[in-house]
Amino acid sequence: MTKSTQKTAAVIIIGNEILSGRTQDQNLAYIGQRLARLGIVLAESLVIPDVEEIIINRVKTCADHYDYVFTTGGIGPTHDDITTAAIAKAFARQIKRDPLAVEAMARHYGDCELTDSRLKMADLPEGASLIDNPISGAPAFQLDNVFVLAGVPSIMRAMFDGLVGRLCPGAPILAASVTTNLTESVLADGLASIQDACVAVSIGSYPYFKQGVAGVNIVLRATDQALLRQQTTTVEQFVKEIGGVVLEMD
Amino acid sequence: MTKSTQKTAAVIIIGNEILSGRTQDQNLAYIGQRLARLGIVLAESLVIPDVEEIIINRVKTCADHYDYVFTTGGIGPTHDDITTAAIAKAFARQIKRDPLAVEAMARHYGDCELTDSRLKMADLPEGASLIDNPISGAPAFQLDNVFVLAGVPSIMRAMFDGLVGRLCPGAPILAASVTTNLTESVLADGLASIQDACVAVSIGSYPYFKQGVAGVNIVLRATDQALLRQQTTTVEQFVKEIGGVVLEMD
Repeated sequence: MTKSTQKTAAVIIIGNEILSGRTQDQNLAYIGQRLARLGIVLAESLVIPDVEEIIINRVKTCADHYDYVFTTGGIGPTHDDITTAAIAKAFARQIKRDPLAVEAMARHYGDCELTDSRLKMADLPEGASLIDNPISGAPAFQLDNVFVLAGVPSIMRAMFDGLVGRLCPGAPILAASVTTNLTESVLADGLASIQDACVAVSIGSYPYFKQGVAGVNIVLRATDQALLRQQTTTVEQFVKEIGGVVLEMD
Repeated sequence: MTKSTQKTAAVIIIGNEILSGRTQDQNLAYIGQRLARLGIVLAESLVIPDVEEIIINRVKTCADHYDYVFTTGGIGPTHDDITTAAIAKAFARQIKRDPLAVEAMARHYGDCELTDSRLKMADLPEGASLIDNPISGAPAFQLDNVFVLAGVPSIMRAMFDGLVGRLCPGAPILAASVTTNLTESVLADGLASIQDACVAVSIGSYPYFKQGVAGVNIVLRATDQALLRQQTTTVEQFVKEIGGVVLEMD
């Protein structure tokens, strides 16, 4: 996979509720899929608690290290929403009421429902560039290379879809898969040879156990469509040669 | 929440398939729930690719920093399963065929199916202590304070349940929740006061949007049952005082 032209990214999932296992994160998978289509390499993800010094430290580290950082969670109006203030500190910015954010919220809520407590969500780091929130009104924001998004999945997805134009796309990372009834042990040597013969197509092997039936999903990923097709055919032929079945999957 | 008697942990999820969004991780939520019951604080989680130097670096950092580290993924027999080798390097250990692992696999597979390629999964870092795999035979292992587990959720769960006796439990982290039809903006000031009045019960506020209906789950967490009940009652009373409904949730 050619990485020289591809940007890199990290996702920082902020929230005690994810670490406690109470809430199943759904945002990483969504952002991961979207970045792959955009040809941006998601290099790493972190799940961290609502603790200011940890947020500041991890955001700074990732912002220095990767082209883009996406955070999710902690931008609401309650006492446990500390992401915005932590990001402001990470970039040494003041928090000020953002007139464009107030306008966006006024459009969403109307003047009557634009209460003082709601308006707190318009208090953003100076220099932040707004990210639309078509679902619940209060905008997210971008500061330098950090995109600070909501944690609620439906809102996060709408925000992400709205900011895509700000990202610099690379060659999309294409994927193909071969599902077989064989086990990994039987496949291992042959797959390793196929991988070695063409490093531009990365091959992953993922065993599954569904209702007592075991098998393996072999996933191929590359930016070159022709090479991807060629290696996928090679894997299918290999599976059949060693007596396996290539299964049709939903 | 009293942390002085509680051990800390990190979870490192290893696998390109999680970062690409192809596979939805389910292991973090399971481990998070189990650790909360054990009174062990899950301080942080990382999702990293199948890249040796990143695995080595992150495992070393977390092993130095936290009492326990749990890794998931990358311990199968195929070319992309590089976790075991990386962990051995992180701890400067040789990889050797482990006779106890061979025995465990022989019991599971019987002699006929104990092929050379399967036996590769018995090649473990010297000094590793085995973790049972009741599902598919090949054991996981512990090295120092690092527990190296499978990525397939059913297998990971069985492994985790089998190793719990090796962990030093603390006071279980108890949780209660109050679900209301109010919005976060309306709740914010009152919740902050309730939180400030009793820091031993941490209060999180999680908005939801289900089929067009919005509301908030307020989650309280503490190690002290009586304090938790008292603060939960206080939150319920507050919700009703400001005109909200406390909803029964499934």
